[in-house]
Amino acid sequence: MARTGLSGLVVTDPANLYYLTGYNAWSFYMPQCLVVPLAGEPQLFMREMDAQGAHYTAYLPADLVHGYPEHLVHRPDRHPMSWIARRAVDVGVLDDGPGARIGVETDAAFFTVRGYRALQDGLARAQLVDALELVNWVRAVKSPLEQEKMRVAGEIAQGVMQVAIDNVEPGRRQCDVVAQIQYAQTLGARKLGGDYPAIVPMLPTGETAGTPHLTWSDLPLRSGEATTIELAGVYHRYHVPLARTVSLGRPPAELARCADAVTEGVQAALAQLRPGSTGQLVQEAFAASVGRHGYVKRSRVGYSIGIGYPPDWGERTISLRRGDLTRIQPGMAFHLILGMWMEGWGYELSEPVLVGAEGAERLAPLPQELTVKT
Amino acid sequence: MARTGLSGLVVTDPANLYYLTGYNAWSFYMPQCLVVPLAGEPQLFMREMDAQGAHYTAYLPADLVHGYPEHLVHRPDRHPMSWIARRAVDVGVLDDGPGARIGVETDAAFFTVRGYRALQDGLARAQLVDALELVNWVRAVKSPLEQEKMRVAGEIAQGVMQVAIDNVEPGRRQCDVVAQIQYAQTLGARKLGGDYPAIVPMLPTGETAGTPHLTWSDLPLRSGEATTIELAGVYHRYHVPLARTVSLGRPPAELARCADAVTEGVQAALAQLRPGSTGQLVQEAFAASVGRHGYVKRSRVGYSIGIGYPPDWGERTISLRRGDLTRIQPGMAFHLILGMWMEGWGYELSEPVLVGAEGAERLAPLPQELTVKT
Repeated sequence: MARTGLSGLVVTDPANLYYLTGYNAWSFYMPQCLVVPLAGEPQLFMREMDAQGAHYTAYLPADLVHGYPEHLVHRPDRHPMSWIARRAVDVGVLDDGPGARIGVETDAAFFTVRGYRALQDGLARAQLVDALELVNWVRAVKSPLEQEKMRVAGEIAQGVMQVAIDNVEPGRRQCDVVAQIQYAQTLGARKLGGDYPAIVPMLPTGETAGTPHLTWSDLPLRSGEATTIELAGVYHRYHVPLARTVSLGRPPAELARCADAVTEGVQAALAQLRPGSTGQLVQEAFAASVGRHGYVKRSRVGYSIGIGYPPDWGERTISLRRGDLTRIQPGMAFHLILGMWMEGWGYELSEPVLVGAEGAERLAPLPQELTVKT
Repeated sequence: MARTGLSGLVVTDPANLYYLTGYNAWSFYMPQCLVVPLAGEPQLFMREMDAQGAHYTAYLPADLVHGYPEHLVHRPDRHPMSWIARRAVDVGVLDDGPGARIGVETDAAFFTVRGYRALQDGLARAQLVDALELVNWVRAVKSPLEQEKMRVAGEIAQGVMQVAIDNVEPGRRQCDVVAQIQYAQTLGARKLGGDYPAIVPMLPTGETAGTPHLTWSDLPLRSGEATTIELAGVYHRYHVPLARTVSLGRPPAELARCADAVTEGVQAALAQLRPGSTGQLVQEAFAASVGRHGYVKRSRVGYSIGIGYPPDWGERTISLRRGDLTRIQPGMAFHLILGMWMEGWGYELSEPVLVGAEGAERLAPLPQELTVKT
């Protein structure tokens, strides 16, 4: 904040709120924020009914948590962010004087245009500036405690994927498989309970397997079709996403060939996921490997992971792709996801990893082949 | 649109996209929208990998679905909405001439400030104006087909709540109960599969029961404590939320007294939920009833329901509260939620209803008392 000349920062991304204070509740569908001053304690601002219990999860004492009144909810003519702006100035955590520069998260879900305008109107002489994922970037390198939580999440992910693979059988409805996945996700691992994922389990199947973000239906799985499964293990909001593909019956030659190429490509990419490397080098390693088999992948091959809230478990910072020159460091975590979405079919394989001094530690080390059930 | 002088409408709320086109996938974490012109077919704009499979759920033909290239994802220096603005003008679905007024959803969760600015920059001579939940308001009255979907969702909700009540037992971990809830939610009812809820199951318990939006932990439930359960049954994205409270052991006198007052108050509120009434009358009926027992509830007693996507299953239109004078009509649906969140304890009871010519049809008619397990 000092480096970019910010006197205050208004944090609205629930993952950033959790990272900075521990605050954790499904209250983000209403306007709420943490205001971080350049000096002094941050303060929370949220709906009254949520403010009264914020101390169950946030470390902040009650007098640093402010609740706006209920009558501000869902009004076309007023917005809670106006109240928040005034209160933040009153309690001295925001400076609305001329020259004050206040950072806001302009690409965060849940910080709406109307909320932004209400905040700006309430801070007329201050200048709102784009904080450009400032807190998200701080989150990129995980502390030892965070790494431990990700290892637990990895164990959950691995166990859940095994449940998913076991349950993909001809005649079972997609929703039956997802019900088993969710059950396992929430039960957790090592007697530690699982948390809810930022994205529901996805299992595009048959001809829709080329459509990565389709959610389930109640149609049955059929012999002769492949299903791509993408899910996450979650512990204390830390996410380890994982993707695999299951073929019911002998796979078509083109799917088997693609799977083999990706299994080879993932080794090349993993070898590049080490301190000092870059997202660009990882992408190039994968592209060169699958390119030898005639495949081209246009989308990125992965992204930074850690804390997640709906709608996304990515950190919205580092992408593993051409042009990303961020230096990879120990403590970073990535979801290396190799999705090949073709016309009418698809293949997915992923590796969630933690970067250590020696290279990538696989967090959910399942076999890297296409699972074929005959 | 004609009445408010709009030549185009940019729809970003996933529930509105689904309502208008049937499009349904977990792709809303990336910028996407439906552009609705005053005359002619609407057109979809989304990430390339999602655009190629949009026709599996949206009724629109492939040439009315446009995919932006992958390299625009998560860049600090460019935004997919700039591409969308240009493409929408090129294909003639948006007018960027002077005097053009284009509606946008300024309080929708996934339409970010950066997205808004990129859209505005790409439509320099057009004026972006607040559409004020235009599509959400159209959704308020449900068609017979929508009502049938809500009845299915109601059956799911009722069955799931029974599972939840059965599973709340001393020594069971919160996550164990939630795992059972989610399993039942996704299995569905009547051989029809359940869909994912816009909000995860919430079960604040013990002293945290006064904190409505806390999610689960892996701590065990304990004798002598009460648990408030809020969940939804979902079918084809239509939500029927439901709340109940379970006491493990004899409830404290203050909880039992509150529950009795609310059981009486809910009858008064339900009687007012009929065509020609208003949210204000419903709130007043409840307030007068519980007021006779010395209770005051500051928050609204309900809201309009229907299609839902994370982070919220409310429609963000009608609230059942003082000042809301919207005329209640047949085909509207509400979640009448009577949450009493006190210091260190809480009580919740809700009734999801469909308004018919004769009055409120309860969608999940479970007993309206506090469940006591001894």
